[in-house]
Amino acid sequence: MMSIRVIVAGANGRMGLEVVKLIQQTNHFTLACGVSRSQAGKDVGEVVGVGKMNAPFVRSVEEALTQFPADVMVDFTTPHVVQKHMELAIEAGVRPVVGTSGLGEQEIQELKQTCKDRRMGAIIAPNFAIGAVLMMVFAAQAAKYMPHVEVIEMHHDQKLDAPSGTSVKTAELIAANRQEIKQGHPEEKEMITGARGADYQGFRIHSVRLPGLVAHQEVLFGGAGQLLTIRHDSLNRESFMPGVKLAVEKVMELDHLVYGLENILDL
Amino acid sequence: MMSIRVIVAGANGRMGLEVVKLIQQTNHFTLACGVSRSQAGKDVGEVVGVGKMNAPFVRSVEEALTQFPADVMVDFTTPHVVQKHMELAIEAGVRPVVGTSGLGEQEIQELKQTCKDRRMGAIIAPNFAIGAVLMMVFAAQAAKYMPHVEVIEMHHDQKLDAPSGTSVKTAELIAANRQEIKQGHPEEKEMITGARGADYQGFRIHSVRLPGLVAHQEVLFGGAGQLLTIRHDSLNRESFMPGVKLAVEKVMELDHLVYGLENILDL
Amino acid sequence: MMSIRVIVAGANGRMGLEVVKLIQQTNHFTLACGVSRSQAGKDVGEVVGVGKMNAPFVRSVEEALTQFPADVMVDFTTPHVVQKHMELAIEAGVRPVVGTSGLGEQEIQELKQTCKDRRMGAIIAPNFAIGAVLMMVFAAQAAKYMPHVEVIEMHHDQKLDAPSGTSVKTAELIAANRQEIKQGHPEEKEMITGARGADYQGFRIHSVRLPGLVAHQEVLFGGAGQLLTIRHDSLNRESFMPGVKLAVEKVMELDHLVYGLENILDL
Amino acid sequence: MMSIRVIVAGANGRMGLEVVKLIQQTNHFTLACGVSRSQAGKDVGEVVGVGKMNAPFVRSVEEALTQFPADVMVDFTTPHVVQKHMELAIEAGVRPVVGTSGLGEQEIQELKQTCKDRRMGAIIAPNFAIGAVLMMVFAAQAAKYMPHVEVIEMHHDQKLDAPSGTSVKTAELIAANRQEIKQGHPEEKEMITGARGADYQGFRIHSVRLPGLVAHQEVLFGGAGQLLTIRHDSLNRESFMPGVKLAVEKVMELDHLVYGLENILDL
Repeated sequence: MMSIRVIVAGANGRMGLEVVKLIQQTNHFTLACGVSRSQAGKDVGEVVGVGKMNAPFVRSVEEALTQFPADVMVDFTTPHVVQKHMELAIEAGVRPVVGTSGLGEQEIQELKQTCKDRRMGAIIAPNFAIGAVLMMVFAAQAAKYMPHVEVIEMHHDQKLDAPSGTSVKTAELIAANRQEIKQGHPEEKEMITGARGADYQGFRIHSVRLPGLVAHQEVLFGGAGQLLTIRHDSLNRESFMPGVKLAVEKVMELDHLVYGLENILDL
Repeated sequence: MMSIRVIVAGANGRMGLEVVKLIQQTNHFTLACGVSRSQAGKDVGEVVGVGKMNAPFVRSVEEALTQFPADVMVDFTTPHVVQKHMELAIEAGVRPVVGTSGLGEQEIQELKQTCKDRRMGAIIAPNFAIGAVLMMVFAAQAAKYMPHVEVIEMHHDQKLDAPSGTSVKTAELIAANRQEIKQGHPEEKEMITGARGADYQGFRIHSVRLPGLVAHQEVLFGGAGQLLTIRHDSLNRESFMPGVKLAVEKVMELDHLVYGLENILDL
Repeated sequence: MMSIRVIVAGANGRMGLEVVKLIQQTNHFTLACGVSRSQAGKDVGEVVGVGKMNAPFVRSVEEALTQFPADVMVDFTTPHVVQKHMELAIEAGVRPVVGTSGLGEQEIQELKQTCKDRRMGAIIAPNFAIGAVLMMVFAAQAAKYMPHVEVIEMHHDQKLDAPSGTSVKTAELIAANRQEIKQGHPEEKEMITGARGADYQGFRIHSVRLPGLVAHQEVLFGGAGQLLTIRHDSLNRESFMPGVKLAVEKVMELDHLVYGLENILDL
Repeated sequence: MMSIRVIVAGANGRMGLEVVKLIQQTNHFTLACGVSRSQAGKDVGEVVGVGKMNAPFVRSVEEALTQFPADVMVDFTTPHVVQKHMELAIEAGVRPVVGTSGLGEQEIQELKQTCKDRRMGAIIAPNFAIGAVLMMVFAAQAAKYMPHVEVIEMHHDQKLDAPSGTSVKTAELIAANRQEIKQGHPEEKEMITGARGADYQGFRIHSVRLPGLVAHQEVLFGGAGQLLTIRHDSLNRESFMPGVKLAVEKVMELDHLVYGLENILDL
């Protein structure tokens, strides 16, 4: 297999560090360079702590794209610079692999058009944890045949919003596939307000918050005499790396922008 | 072991039938007679379908107590007759084992006094499922050392009230043992009302309702870096019989009324 | 929707009774007749206990197929008569929907050919529980991207064989999709024989047997920092009816034999 | 509450660091000094990274005990020095709180005698995770009333031994409380060797090993119509700190050696 040369934007951030380690551990990946204003000039591998990788930090994405031949640019930086980064990469003939849920519908449409015009592959995914993506895909599929469903999401007790973003995304996918029914007994009564959870289009989402939890979600489908449960447990951001690896490989075969890791899975 | 002679009140009801089967299967139990107006005169075993037991149905608890020597009377009839039944039994020197959550505080106090005066054993339990009782006892114990807790109870979708009686009872026991804290982040926000469940003295109860579920409860205790979960699944009323058996044996050793199966367990 | 006329072979058996109830509850299904030597002549609905359905029991599948116009024949009888039943039905222009895992590879091939020659739909499924079938399909899909897997199947303690048929079937589907790896540490050591379960092509199956369990299976996929779990709980044979309903509807649109419920699901 | 002055042996080790943080966060605990040959002379808090604590590292336990007035010495060092450390501490009037499973029966007996002679409190615990200890205590209690049990323990795939030490310890406690029965059907048959797990005195232990798992254990108790499950999930060594805190407080009230955290819990 020919080696894929990768630029890592934000290589000194938390996700960037993991991506550098991934490249270091993958035989057919090569690090072109990393982007980090504060670390410019140093060897990326040495800063990350995995030993010399013979690829430097540079000051900007522009510098990286003009001075280092590359096939793919992985970008986990902040949403407001991501679109600009992607446009620069596409123009330079480098395929972007981007992790963000912060892009609007219009921005995505513009980027799709740019990729189409250039026949250039690109991948944007709000979630690179393959297990979480599979959970969502399976939940959407199951909802076609088992429309009675509830979602229980569980997170550490310092999380501010309930329900979680992943659970709402899951609920959207379920709702799109499920015949609309109002679940539970029509005369059911909450003796204490909130017991039956959040109502999302006729089904319920429950948010548990405890110390000792990290990020977990359970989707329960019930039918007469049976129960199907799909659960994902996420412990740390290592869980994103197999998805990033897959995306870097797949983007090489694409000639357009794909949004969502589920759309490059071959299920 | 000497055989314990048992009268079964309401022997033709759903729980009564199970108690008759229990007696038939237990070597050291003997059926004295069953009480059922509609089946009076027939052999209990034959009606229940376990073969002749040489014990008849009689028309009333009075008739049973006066005509059949017995040690224990098991009673799963309706709450409003239970107190009267118990008083008759105690007067006749027969120890009552009663399954009901319908007695008020005052009725229980009166029955306690009667038992005390007569030095007579009696057991009343709202729940005879040993597994459920153990779940509640363990939850109460754990709450002393792991005060961060949430309860998830799950029942079939024809259940009307939420949260379930068992979950509220569990929550009471937890609250009695737990230092009072308000869980979750002080600034946590429900983006959809009800997501965080029912608030019970600062911790949460979540009620899931789906076809395919029967009666289940999970109590989750969280601490830094760890989680303790206690779960009970109940499928049918067979689950009550080991508790009834234990109560019939234990009541023979008592000289007072005990309320709650947990108080005859030797933990 | 035009009503689908259904013959139920073995209508007096345990599964047959459930199928009759299903037909009675489904507006666009009509019962043509039931087959049961011992109940011949009686009204099926009355025997089943759902009230008069104006469809009789007849003595044989031949009699049913020649005397009652029908679209579909549902057959949950024993494997050794099923092939004969299917051939008779196909000849009579009636589509068979058959629940059995007892047919050999050659018998299935012959039946496929017969259906093809006649351009006639037919469905054979070893398992009609949609939830169980979804579990297996999802497990096979997940194995492509998360090759580290273990299976825990849990059944009542009167089950004789371990691991269960469903778990072995699941393992086959996983193995067909998964890159072959030997899981666990190469130097791992069983301090008590059997701790690590049954080895199936490099991954493990564990069989739990306890009273109180019915039929449950959990498939766990692990990756760095994450876990994906797919679980199915089966309580009773009611769980098969949504699958039977779907098959009766789908077989009307087929012109060939389909083996396995998963192949008529639109995922 | 009067402050408890604590010496931390092995304060520069992984557990020691956590203990120092615990002391720093607990109002009524004061750090006397830490022991670490390599860090001798430096401020413990500064080395640990929690800011100056005005307590130095010293070179040896002897030096710590002679030069710094203290109430308790916490020791998570290696088993072969622990007994010596404990004897020195007891002699100096400092109560030891020790985390090790490496002491033999005879060493424990000798230490018990020493404590008794001196009327000095001491605590040795093989496991300081309160949740894990509660799981074991509850499992032992449940086994009295629900003798049908299986244990599933789940760990990361780099673990070498199966079943885990905790699961064997749990099994011992269960066995001590459970009437001896051989579980499962007498004629049950393993179609693949190992499916039914490791046999421990008539019940089974199953060991699951997957990346993504950390350290988890589930104890399942089955009875007719019901299931009781006790589960513990452990993510990191932060989980030991509440147990250490409790032990430091409780040891002040003791006049003898207590072995096992369960024996200072008030359940």
